[in-house]
Amino acid sequence: MTPLLERGRALAMPVLRAAVEGLAAPMDSVASYHFGWIDAHGRPSAADGGKAVRPALALASTEAVGARPEAGIPGAVAVELVHNFSLLHDDLMDGDEQRRHRDTVWRVHGPAQAILVGDALFTLANEILLEPGTPETGRAARRMTAATRKLIDGQAQDMAYEHRERVTVAECLEMEGNKTGALLACATSIGAVLGGADEHTADALEAYGFHLGLAFQAVDDLLGVWGDPEATGKQTWSDLRQRKKSLPVVAALASGTGSADKLAELMAADSRKSQRESGDFDEAEFASRAALIEEAGGRDMTLEVAHDQHRKAVDALHGLDMPQTVRDQLVAFADFVVVRQR
Amino acid sequence: MTPLLERGRALAMPVLRAAVEGLAAPMDSVASYHFGWIDAHGRPSAADGGKAVRPALALASTEAVGARPEAGIPGAVAVELVHNFSLLHDDLMDGDEQRRHRDTVWRVHGPAQAILVGDALFTLANEILLEPGTPETGRAARRMTAATRKLIDGQAQDMAYEHRERVTVAECLEMEGNKTGALLACATSIGAVLGGADEHTADALEAYGFHLGLAFQAVDDLLGVWGDPEATGKQTWSDLRQRKKSLPVVAALASGTGSADKLAELMAADSRKSQRESGDFDEAEFASRAALIEEAGGRDMTLEVAHDQHRKAVDALHGLDMPQTVRDQLVAFADFVVVRQR
Repeated sequence: MTPLLERGRALAMPVLRAAVEGLAAPMDSVASYHFGWIDAHGRPSAADGGKAVRPALALASTEAVGARPEAGIPGAVAVELVHNFSLLHDDLMDGDEQRRHRDTVWRVHGPAQAILVGDALFTLANEILLEPGTPETGRAARRMTAATRKLIDGQAQDMAYEHRERVTVAECLEMEGNKTGALLACATSIGAVLGGADEHTADALEAYGFHLGLAFQAVDDLLGVWGDPEATGKQTWSDLRQRKKSLPVVAALASGTGSADKLAELMAADSRKSQRESGDFDEAEFASRAALIEEAGGRDMTLEVAHDQHRKAVDALHGLDMPQTVRDQLVAFADFVVVRQR
Repeated sequence: MTPLLERGRALAMPVLRAAVEGLAAPMDSVASYHFGWIDAHGRPSAADGGKAVRPALALASTEAVGARPEAGIPGAVAVELVHNFSLLHDDLMDGDEQRRHRDTVWRVHGPAQAILVGDALFTLANEILLEPGTPETGRAARRMTAATRKLIDGQAQDMAYEHRERVTVAECLEMEGNKTGALLACATSIGAVLGGADEHTADALEAYGFHLGLAFQAVDDLLGVWGDPEATGKQTWSDLRQRKKSLPVVAALASGTGSADKLAELMAADSRKSQRESGDFDEAEFASRAALIEEAGGRDMTLEVAHDQHRKAVDALHGLDMPQTVRDQLVAFADFVVVRQR
């Protein structure tokens, strides 16, 4: 874990935890399960509750404008709550049964609790952010709400693309920009807004986060096909098993190569079977699909997107006046995002 | 329909509709179906989209503080969006298949769209309310967020009480205060806040709305058992069919009378059957339960709550300086709520 992440976790997560534990029963328990603080039977647990990337970035953005990180805490907490609201609802909508190596909330506590507690986390995010009642909190809330709208648009696109045979690379990037870029963009600017940043500075930091988010997602898409299960904690070929139309797949299909045609044929045959049947393919079947994606250029293209977006993220910081230590941290974090193996 | 409701609909609903129709596809269509503007096949429709009570009250509250009603429109639209967000999610959580004589969204478009479009309406409410970026919008957003938190708490209580044999009258009233009172309280004050009301005035108008909400709910609970299906558009004994622990039922069970014991026995026997089986009871079975509730005093007690809350609502307006026409409208609306047959 980078120092940036450690610090974000140390400052923001206790505030987030106190707020979540203050929800009315049984929502407090359901949310605590989701965050990994208790197990399915209510016993204390220290499960993986995620990397808390967004709070860390929010606090760094506060320091980027010369304010004390404490000023950014409501934003850091709010944006992490919005992220987890979307996880609770998306897991249910997508029928995903596992997150962070544990059964998802809807599997353990039922769909109704997943819906309700998601709603409660989103509401809590707004409460925490608006509470101070300063002009800055209004600006921050407007940015967070705009990011949430994009998050929802991205989920709508993701669900629609699942049923379509062809998705263009541009559509895939737009969807990933909405689903991952928008909230990271909010994270990397909301703390600055609370710290008194002008709109130009907030926009530049937002651009850093947006491109960082697309780089992050491109690497995620690579790990979803070629990641080492020991490192990622996911199954081998996890995105292929789930038939995700992730960037490598979409880019491969759009390449116009012979490998693309073969891949398209296999996928069309798949869609005539149930997901359960095709989930039972053996390792060799997935390995040969991964090879086709690679031959069609899907891997190289996604790697190129990761590097291109990494460069754009770092470029967005140019011309912004900020303490050197903060700049170093933000650049180091962008580097970490691209080279990470999990 | 009262003039207050007509005016609210005329001013706020076109703005709400334009905003909803601006959602990304397919969320715009799903939401348009929910509001009754199109049918399940996407054809134009003029189905009942609800009485739009909340926008009407919001605009009246703007006028109560001497501002032009237009100033309250973002609040009127936002609060109606929050109401409909909660309907979309509650119908899915509760498994309700019908609303306003039509199949609910999750039945027509599936659970995932009901979740996503609910989220989109809640987000849109925040966007519209925060957009002007004035100090008043921040105050209004804080009040709306607090009301939404209560709405969610109320739904959590409602779901929990369903599985409990005994619920106290106080618990039932608290739940109804959260589920119905809080958002009506927000409706009757949010427009005033946007019109520049001080906190004292906003709080008094909020008290009017809170008690109005409890009176409204008590009458709803009466209509749910003894309502004329011709007028309500619901089935006879609809709340009994749905085994709702509504106020007349809870009050009857808590009465300590012989009728209460008989009712409790019948309900305990019910809970050993599936809902489908007990939904097939004949009219005589429901009629005899309704009679037991009435004998145990559940009907009188609920009527008393309705009148008591009506009086408290009207009392909350005393001492507030407002144009006489607005006061007359608010009092007339409270009267209408208590005497309505549907």
